[in-house]
Amino acid sequence: MTDVSHPHAEETQLAEPHLGAVLASAGLDAEYVRAEGNMLYQRAEDGGEIPVLDYAGGYGSLLLGHHHPKLVAYAKELLDAGVPVHSQFSLHPEAARLALTLSRIVRRESGYEEPYFAIFANTGAEANEAALKHAEMDRVMRLGALLATIDDGITKAREAVRDGSATIPAEVFERVGLEPRDSGVAALNELTHHLVTRNATQAGRPPVLLTPEGSFHGKLVGTVQLTHNEGYRNPFKALAAQARFVPLDRPGMLRKMADEERATLFGLEVADGLVRLTEHDAPLICAFILEPIQGEGGIREVSREFVQEVHEVCAEAGAPVIVDEIQSGMGRTGDFLAGTRLGLRGDYYTLAKSLGGGLAKISVLLVRGSRYQGQFELIHSSTFAKDGFSNRIALKVLELLEADDGAAYRKAAELGDRLLAMLGSVRDDYPDVVKDIRGRGLFLGLEFHDQSGAPAAPVAEAARSGLFGYLVAGHLLRGHRLRTFPTASAPNTLRFEPSILLTDDEIKWLETALRDTCDIIQGGYRRPLELPGA
Amino acid sequence: MTDVSHPHAEETQLAEPHLGAVLASAGLDAEYVRAEGNMLYQRAEDGGEIPVLDYAGGYGSLLLGHHHPKLVAYAKELLDAGVPVHSQFSLHPEAARLALTLSRIVRRESGYEEPYFAIFANTGAEANEAALKHAEMDRVMRLGALLATIDDGITKAREAVRDGSATIPAEVFERVGLEPRDSGVAALNELTHHLVTRNATQAGRPPVLLTPEGSFHGKLVGTVQLTHNEGYRNPFKALAAQARFVPLDRPGMLRKMADEERATLFGLEVADGLVRLTEHDAPLICAFILEPIQGEGGIREVSREFVQEVHEVCAEAGAPVIVDEIQSGMGRTGDFLAGTRLGLRGDYYTLAKSLGGGLAKISVLLVRGSRYQGQFELIHSSTFAKDGFSNRIALKVLELLEADDGAAYRKAAELGDRLLAMLGSVRDDYPDVVKDIRGRGLFLGLEFHDQSGAPAAPVAEAARSGLFGYLVAGHLLRGHRLRTFPTASAPNTLRFEPSILLTDDEIKWLETALRDTCDIIQGGYRRPLELPGA
Repeated sequence: MTDVSHPHAEETQLAEPHLGAVLASAGLDAEYVRAEGNMLYQRAEDGGEIPVLDYAGGYGSLLLGHHHPKLVAYAKELLDAGVPVHSQFSLHPEAARLALTLSRIVRRESGYEEPYFAIFANTGAEANEAALKHAEMDRVMRLGALLATIDDGITKAREAVRDGSATIPAEVFERVGLEPRDSGVAALNELTHHLVTRNATQAGRPPVLLTPEGSFHGKLVGTVQLTHNEGYRNPFKALAAQARFVPLDRPGMLRKMADEERATLFGLEVADGLVRLTEHDAPLICAFILEPIQGEGGIREVSREFVQEVHEVCAEAGAPVIVDEIQSGMGRTGDFLAGTRLGLRGDYYTLAKSLGGGLAKISVLLVRGSRYQGQFELIHSSTFAKDGFSNRIALKVLELLEADDGAAYRKAAELGDRLLAMLGSVRDDYPDVVKDIRGRGLFLGLEFHDQSGAPAAPVAEAARSGLFGYLVAGHLLRGHRLRTFPTASAPNTLRFEPSILLTDDEIKWLETALRDTCDIIQGGYRRPLELPGA
Repeated sequence: MTDVSHPHAEETQLAEPHLGAVLASAGLDAEYVRAEGNMLYQRAEDGGEIPVLDYAGGYGSLLLGHHHPKLVAYAKELLDAGVPVHSQFSLHPEAARLALTLSRIVRRESGYEEPYFAIFANTGAEANEAALKHAEMDRVMRLGALLATIDDGITKAREAVRDGSATIPAEVFERVGLEPRDSGVAALNELTHHLVTRNATQAGRPPVLLTPEGSFHGKLVGTVQLTHNEGYRNPFKALAAQARFVPLDRPGMLRKMADEERATLFGLEVADGLVRLTEHDAPLICAFILEPIQGEGGIREVSREFVQEVHEVCAEAGAPVIVDEIQSGMGRTGDFLAGTRLGLRGDYYTLAKSLGGGLAKISVLLVRGSRYQGQFELIHSSTFAKDGFSNRIALKVLELLEADDGAAYRKAAELGDRLLAMLGSVRDDYPDVVKDIRGRGLFLGLEFHDQSGAPAAPVAEAARSGLFGYLVAGHLLRGHRLRTFPTASAPNTLRFEPSILLTDDEIKWLETALRDTCDIIQGGYRRPLELPGA
């Protein structure tokens, strides 16, 4: 409990003070007054500006940089023109244009011929929640249809037995674990009661949500249970359906887990005067959801083999593959979708972050035509979603990305290669400090070796409590005016997600900062990491 | 499934086409090109503008109207100055100012002395999800602390029995349903095993979420289960914890339901050489969440008696009262919080909609100091939340509302009285058409009598399928250039949520439109409602 006895308690910090204290302890308590491109600016004591190079990039929201001039100009134009922001329950031709544009791009990337329908939301987590709801509605409908078909078959079989046109062979009873009986009405009733009860139990099992270990899909009530990090997830377990987390590096495990979750429903049919048992797979698997490159899990790309297994298992189960491209998508990796090069084809896609161009809050769930349930539109909505401002900003973002035959994507790929080469040279020079570098395009991570045995006690302590990456982030900020953070669930990995405006000087800036950091670590912290008060 | 066989399927509408079809069927397929104050504008065929008076008010987001000039100017100023939008994990003094301002206002209204801490989110539903998560984390922590205390007592009792300093009376066994045994170690083991197992079962029961019938708290995975409307909720039941819905008009029912959900945990203590049983209430009730005036439930104010019962039951259960002021708050009813006049004091408050001034997407969860769990900040977050743009717009909104000692609130109250008087005169003149008028300030509803027996077949049919309100909305739009909609879960009730810029002429405009509608209904639809193609 917070101490509120202090008379001036109200005058204290009321907007997440504990987080502020953690930031301060790592030297991350900076205040920024201006933003432009890859740069954030602090106010200097003399009134001037202190530039800080931003490699955190709004946690992936700033592929086009802070305050892209064309987006700012367009935003002001929309404000000046009084373009309606909130006009729910009216026509939104710009939403239709946005949906069509997204559908075309995603078709191009996924290779599916069908169009994708769009459900708009406001944040990445909301888009994933919508995906979860759509998948579950679809599952419940398929399950309902299957149960209706089975009921129909049972009714027909009952009629046939009653009117004497069919009999029930002993093996039918045996196969469902009942004592064989004669074919009278009592036996029939016992059999059908058994089947209906058994089916209801099987059909009533909780939906199965599958996602890889290391996943991050948001922190709302439903999505936080798809987020692997136990610290985020455990306190809220009782609020929502649980996911099963599939290891990424053990081929066959997904299939094994899917098999464990199979349930058979039994029905009856009549053929040649005999009642026969029919078997049906219950659609218990609601969805498989994955990031092609896990962001908060440490910038880890899934393998093509894993993708292949996901496709096979989901196709057999009739369950949709939900591809969460919230952080990896929008061109950051050099393709609009990071999953394209992995052969990943989503039944659903979710996009957010850079879709809003760093100015608008917008996300979207795209659903492949043949898996789309139109009724969903009538029961899912949000006051702020599909607003006239965000839709238009997102359209402008896509225009900027797609211009010149995708020059922005090529730029992301090319800059990413240069950045990766630099990170590789740092790793090569400091193999005892840098454990790994990972990622693609402008979505890169650098993992440090575990420092929990470091000779500097504060460093070792931070490492043991998962805060080492924040310590390094503090050093980079204080010592090098460079902003980045560890990935949320892999705290030894630093994230690098700059915009496509990145320059060679800015790459060099990062290199200098990283080499200095590696020097300190390699030197056994004889020179300390730059920290508050240091 | 959607038909995708059409070669030009992709050229069709991909942004919620089914919703579009429903809108068109009611004549609500309007497109707006400009917005200002209470007015939305359509483009006329001659290129001019057709004004439409907006009583829907962005579903409650536009208390200050569309594009309030001071907010637009400020938004442009922020864009011009390059004020950082996304700078996560840095200091946000403007968020601190916003939190402090909200805390002061809410303290003034609730009468609580303590400050309120702020957790920022992006949408109303997200704020309610955060509230749910915070309440559950708090419950799990309280439960954990209680179990630890009980375990401690049991351990001490075991030691006392083992070292012979205490014995277990027969009545202890009897009270927990065991055969009385002698006080040996075997008996002790049996007793403690029984208690620990029983406690684990009781403590593991699902959290109890309580909310009134008619509630609407959002459509995300968790919150949709707090939304009473079964059409919105049922397909997604298996995804999240279920709420119990409390009738608003049956005093004592809340207490009865809370009593049904009670669970007792047993512990042991030693006194005077005897082991005694202790009894503890398990904190199973996670939260009670309510809107002071239900919005989508038909603009229905809860009674002071109900509020009183909520307070009593929650105080006894140690559960927080979450007051959802997302639609009713921000001054709409003449007070900053609609619950103030009902004696409602929230442990938590959620705000959104008009907090963003019709331009920004922002919501907030406020938690009373003594119930606030600071650790929550470290495990709950959102990329888009607490951004520099929304925080500042919200601060400006509060500045506009609080100016001149709350002139905006007085304006809302005064305009609301005039609007209500007008609606009352319509009801008085058409008692067979208008069933009820409800609400407060600029948050009003007009309920029509059921029209499912109407002589006009299309009207009766619409009424039977819950679409009568949309039919009327279509008539108001087509025939009177006036925009409003029914409340989502009470489709015979029209909503009126204009801004504080409302004029007498605009009230008159609504009166004319409503009287014309009532004339048509009272006249048995001899003149049809203005509809598409009519």
